[in-house]
Amino acid sequence: MADLAAANLTNGTPEAGPLTYAGTGVRQDLVAIALGKMLASIRTTAPASSGRPVKLPGHFAGLLRIGRETLALTTDNVGTKLLLAHTLDRWEEVGEDVVAVNVNDLSAVGARPSALVDYIAVQSPVPSVFEALGKGLARGLREARCHLVGGETSIVPDLVRSLDLSGTALGFFPRGRAPVTGATLRPGDVLIGLPSSGFHSNGYTLVRRLIEEYSIDIARPLPDDARPLGHRLLAPTRIYTRPVEALLAAHLPVALAHISGRGARNLLRLNSRVQFTLDALPAPEGLFRWIADLSRLPAEELYQTFNMGVGFVVGVRAKQVDRALSVLKRSGEKRAQVIGHIEKGRGVRLPELGVRYDSY
Amino acid sequence: MADLAAANLTNGTPEAGPLTYAGTGVRQDLVAIALGKMLASIRTTAPASSGRPVKLPGHFAGLLRIGRETLALTTDNVGTKLLLAHTLDRWEEVGEDVVAVNVNDLSAVGARPSALVDYIAVQSPVPSVFEALGKGLARGLREARCHLVGGETSIVPDLVRSLDLSGTALGFFPRGRAPVTGATLRPGDVLIGLPSSGFHSNGYTLVRRLIEEYSIDIARPLPDDARPLGHRLLAPTRIYTRPVEALLAAHLPVALAHISGRGARNLLRLNSRVQFTLDALPAPEGLFRWIADLSRLPAEELYQTFNMGVGFVVGVRAKQVDRALSVLKRSGEKRAQVIGHIEKGRGVRLPELGVRYDSY
Repeated sequence: MADLAAANLTNGTPEAGPLTYAGTGVRQDLVAIALGKMLASIRTTAPASSGRPVKLPGHFAGLLRIGRETLALTTDNVGTKLLLAHTLDRWEEVGEDVVAVNVNDLSAVGARPSALVDYIAVQSPVPSVFEALGKGLARGLREARCHLVGGETSIVPDLVRSLDLSGTALGFFPRGRAPVTGATLRPGDVLIGLPSSGFHSNGYTLVRRLIEEYSIDIARPLPDDARPLGHRLLAPTRIYTRPVEALLAAHLPVALAHISGRGARNLLRLNSRVQFTLDALPAPEGLFRWIADLSRLPAEELYQTFNMGVGFVVGVRAKQVDRALSVLKRSGEKRAQVIGHIEKGRGVRLPELGVRYDSY
Repeated sequence: MADLAAANLTNGTPEAGPLTYAGTGVRQDLVAIALGKMLASIRTTAPASSGRPVKLPGHFAGLLRIGRETLALTTDNVGTKLLLAHTLDRWEEVGEDVVAVNVNDLSAVGARPSALVDYIAVQSPVPSVFEALGKGLARGLREARCHLVGGETSIVPDLVRSLDLSGTALGFFPRGRAPVTGATLRPGDVLIGLPSSGFHSNGYTLVRRLIEEYSIDIARPLPDDARPLGHRLLAPTRIYTRPVEALLAAHLPVALAHISGRGARNLLRLNSRVQFTLDALPAPEGLFRWIADLSRLPAEELYQTFNMGVGFVVGVRAKQVDRALSVLKRSGEKRAQVIGHIEKGRGVRLPELGVRYDSY
């Protein structure tokens, strides 16, 4: 079980500290070491009478066979975007985020979201904050067609500053549907990108530091924009349930990836025996142009920290591309576009940017 | 869904702030108001194609019907016991706690634990801390016969002091087993208590304040004890999976309750049309004697803040008591004892202490 657990446990911490500054990477090493220590201790395997884990190392959710059903379980948090919500005292967006970050991980294994539980650790319970969180949660649940079946709210002023928010989502595979892992990807397959709504829930430690360092007024909009930058930065993570369910109903995806914490590196979780060539990525616009200009980070850092405009990737056979794009369009996904394809080799390549990622 | 969610969401925060001091209860009111606001916003119901929640208001876990299986999902955290772990730099016990607090809630609906995901929010990742957490997690998982299928570790120094630890557990009902809700409890039924190992994961904000207020040296043992008080305080929450599974295999329980956050009030979650008369509770010993003497709290406060020696309660028919006690003994539960019975009426009564609880 350790490798399965490791896969999930190493997911989602790239926004920590100075990680994305000047490629120091120190803290990330520490995380890997710490998690390695933890997982080395966990070598137990529960008996089959407790259900059977389905081996899917490195993937976006843990899979489990219980009785006659295959289930997917995943847990994720909103992260330091919450501190921006605190600064602006706007909480509806992050309420939606906690649904999104979890259900998108379910979609990335081809599971249909079924239920969510939330975890709120808070310094003190302000009713207006909870009301806004509830509105966001409701919007997310509606979009993901997901039930809220429980939650835990803990008032821990000695442990948490402001408010921490995470969740766990349970998904399943409707009759006749198998998990989509990317294992069958082969040269010639095409990668379709679904647009993001902004930074989603990743990279905010860096974003907040840059805002502070350059004393940026987030109450003002970026050029050519009407809404304040702060509101743009809080835009909730897109929920890809509807378009992905539509594709799955048409049996089109051979690979699915949620572009979260590690940016384009997430593709490496799908298949280590093919090369992901991203040669048709959209040009960075809006927030992505802004962060590139402001941070002056090299493309390699940008594309492993931010989604850079593509929040979800779908792999399909070449002859199915038109059909997939038309299914996506009908599900409301009008700006989906081909962003690359599969080649012989391994790793992720962004040839126009001279970037190559070989490990997650 | 709102009532189902409310049931879980209001679970588990009684250790907050001055709640247990002099019965102020102010903060608890705030939590209820805040959660009420949040849940009022969540009126959405997902379609049946996403699985169907099973109505079980007020209970220890959310239940869900997916395909041909009924599943139970619950989430809970370790709470401010973590600050004691931090002070003593001992983390193995709380690693076990995060398994225990969740799987015991599954046992309380009669579900068999299957899988856990953990969530760690941490100031900085210290390898030795994670190694110890892993050892505790492993021990808990082994005892609960539960798989670890994923997790999330987030380095959020601006959000969390020290380390916050929570988890979510998924359980199921083996073929032929139905959820145990307590709905069929009737006068004459008998309540059996399973001993706790200490305060489990509840009441630590109060405990820590008393230690500070009276400058108590937790490196020294209590009278008639060999181990330091600090180690006793960190004793991991007992995991009741084995004894409860043994009882369920013999079709004995008609009610099950995990005595967590709200102490004896947890029984109120089972059935509102009968009275729970606890007239044979064990006399407080060890830590429980100590906290009673030190805090000078009235019995009403003590029994709603701490488990007072009983961590899990099983309701059985009167004629099944001997069989249940013998099944428990065979499963290693030698100190299980009858602690009370069901009478006509409603609420929880501790007649010898003059205590009565009428609402959760």
